[in-house]
Amino acid sequence: MDRRSFLKASTAGGAAAAATSLAAPAYAQGKRTLTMVTSWPRGFAVLDDAASYMEKTVSELSDGQLTIDKKAPGELVGALEVFDAVSSGQADMYHSADYYFVGQHPGYAYFTSVPFGGTAQEVTNWYLHGGGQELHDELGSIFNLKGLIAGNSGSQSGGWFRKEINSVDDFKGLKFRMPGLGGQVLTKLGASVQNIPGGELYQALSSGALDGLEWVGPLADERAGFQEVAKVYYTAGFHEPGSALAASVNLDVWNDLTDQQRSILTQSSYATTYWQLAQTLAGNGAALSRLQAQGVKTLQFPDDVWDGFGSASKEVLDEYMDDELFAKIRSSYETSMAESSGWLSKSDAFYVEQRVRVLGG
Amino acid sequence: MDRRSFLKASTAGGAAAAATSLAAPAYAQGKRTLTMVTSWPRGFAVLDDAASYMEKTVSELSDGQLTIDKKAPGELVGALEVFDAVSSGQADMYHSADYYFVGQHPGYAYFTSVPFGGTAQEVTNWYLHGGGQELHDELGSIFNLKGLIAGNSGSQSGGWFRKEINSVDDFKGLKFRMPGLGGQVLTKLGASVQNIPGGELYQALSSGALDGLEWVGPLADERAGFQEVAKVYYTAGFHEPGSALAASVNLDVWNDLTDQQRSILTQSSYATTYWQLAQTLAGNGAALSRLQAQGVKTLQFPDDVWDGFGSASKEVLDEYMDDELFAKIRSSYETSMAESSGWLSKSDAFYVEQRVRVLGG
Repeated sequence: MDRRSFLKASTAGGAAAAATSLAAPAYAQGKRTLTMVTSWPRGFAVLDDAASYMEKTVSELSDGQLTIDKKAPGELVGALEVFDAVSSGQADMYHSADYYFVGQHPGYAYFTSVPFGGTAQEVTNWYLHGGGQELHDELGSIFNLKGLIAGNSGSQSGGWFRKEINSVDDFKGLKFRMPGLGGQVLTKLGASVQNIPGGELYQALSSGALDGLEWVGPLADERAGFQEVAKVYYTAGFHEPGSALAASVNLDVWNDLTDQQRSILTQSSYATTYWQLAQTLAGNGAALSRLQAQGVKTLQFPDDVWDGFGSASKEVLDEYMDDELFAKIRSSYETSMAESSGWLSKSDAFYVEQRVRVLGG
Repeated sequence: MDRRSFLKASTAGGAAAAATSLAAPAYAQGKRTLTMVTSWPRGFAVLDDAASYMEKTVSELSDGQLTIDKKAPGELVGALEVFDAVSSGQADMYHSADYYFVGQHPGYAYFTSVPFGGTAQEVTNWYLHGGGQELHDELGSIFNLKGLIAGNSGSQSGGWFRKEINSVDDFKGLKFRMPGLGGQVLTKLGASVQNIPGGELYQALSSGALDGLEWVGPLADERAGFQEVAKVYYTAGFHEPGSALAASVNLDVWNDLTDQQRSILTQSSYATTYWQLAQTLAGNGAALSRLQAQGVKTLQFPDDVWDGFGSASKEVLDEYMDDELFAKIRSSYETSMAESSGWLSKSDAFYVEQRVRVLGG
């Protein structure tokens, strides 16, 4: 018999159940719904997939005693208003990308992804075992938030363009969508950068309000339909090599949860990242083939464009270094990344090179 | 009030609680302990870390209503007897590496790692989103097992040697420990291959019963102390590029669990892999530096040795192809790996190359 059946039986018990005075309040207190505001339209590939997986998992793990009531942009607040809504207690938690909130604090960039930063695995190593979680919480405490990561969309594509990029000068005057510090890097290269929510991008690209944009990767980009309005696609990008998604919780709400409820949120956030990153990476290859079949040309930026990205990225990061917490987060992140990649370059990367050489692909 | 306090209060309620006839059996049925036999001595880095994380997480997620009673080798059965113990119902679940059981069925190799196979991420993509889980269950049904993956130790090191390997001929007559199909590859190259449990390896290497061995990677290898008895360490290996750990459950036990209990086991297995792989990869870099400081020489096998690994690996895999289920698993795995790496080579791998080129490390 599961707990729900027991509850029913208990209630049917009537007088007997009532005689155990603590029984009813215990169940009433045990059942709890958390309102989650998100930055994603319902059904948006990759991003809403992660939020939906967490919603489903929390309910299953608790047998319906803890549930998430997920709200798309506009249902309670706008896509980019979720941070303030949870900080203020208007909603219990959000699912979004923390680098949308570099205006609140530039350190939030590190809890999504930063230019020339870590891959999804390197970022996970840092977050769980290199001090990242603790720094997310330290930063969150300023805004009354408990930090959680739930999802990762992997290495973001370089983006969609109407024409090829042959030198850094081609970014001059380009109306381009790129959030976070990556956008600030392109601004240094002369682009006119805008941070537009995902749900409004297709229209902006199609109307010419944007000359180009980066969104996520083949699976999500195909679903958004960008191939219908731009034909040049750069597969690798400098700006977000492993973009984490955040599912942070109002700190008062978090402190009011039981240990079991906190465990359910934490472990389901881990399971979400594991499941959804794999879904994205499993789907990107096939999606890329379909995009190519629709006439999309896939390219890589040339080395001197990467050099331009590199020097502008360093400038952007350095400009925030007089913020003490930013500097602390950056130092922790870069130390962990160097350690992770010190091993990965000698193992995984060397292995994959040999696999390609020996098997021919 | 959490469920445990409620249970206590309820029991204290005495006659009133007893009057609700269904109450007591519901709790008695709800509380369940699963005996988990493992192939790892207690405290063994990486491997027992994964099993311990799952043990702890299951208990926290269920508020102690579902618990795992973890048994080290020898406490109930031997390290390599865990599969038969769970298959027969002597224990409820095991934590091990499924390629120890290629004797039961060669297809089990794919649920740990195979020569020239997928990295940890590629294997995860296949397992969760490319048909791997379903094939694990199909294979498991022969042995009365429900397949679960809980942990991944990443790309395994090439191994510990007393002297350098300069050509494939150097494997001739070498007494070497390597389990799974990798061991069969080295046998083809003339090595005398043995499958010895982890807990007995230090002694075997130290006594000269082995000339060399591969175990896991720097973090686990350092803890095992191999650097005290061998000084040559190859960092990349061909044999296990992303070794999954299995936490499979007796199928009758699995079918008898509630939906909530099955969700707790499944999601905790995901969280375990996510958490423990990151722990391993975060720790390997620093461990490698410590090994080098203790006089260990780190090397890579030369290209012609990799070529030898490649042709012998193909021979070994091809020899099993008249087993229909093996062929089905191999085909599913290789299709998924090709799709995953088709994208990863154009995104993550290209990005990391550029990061190294631009930042110089």
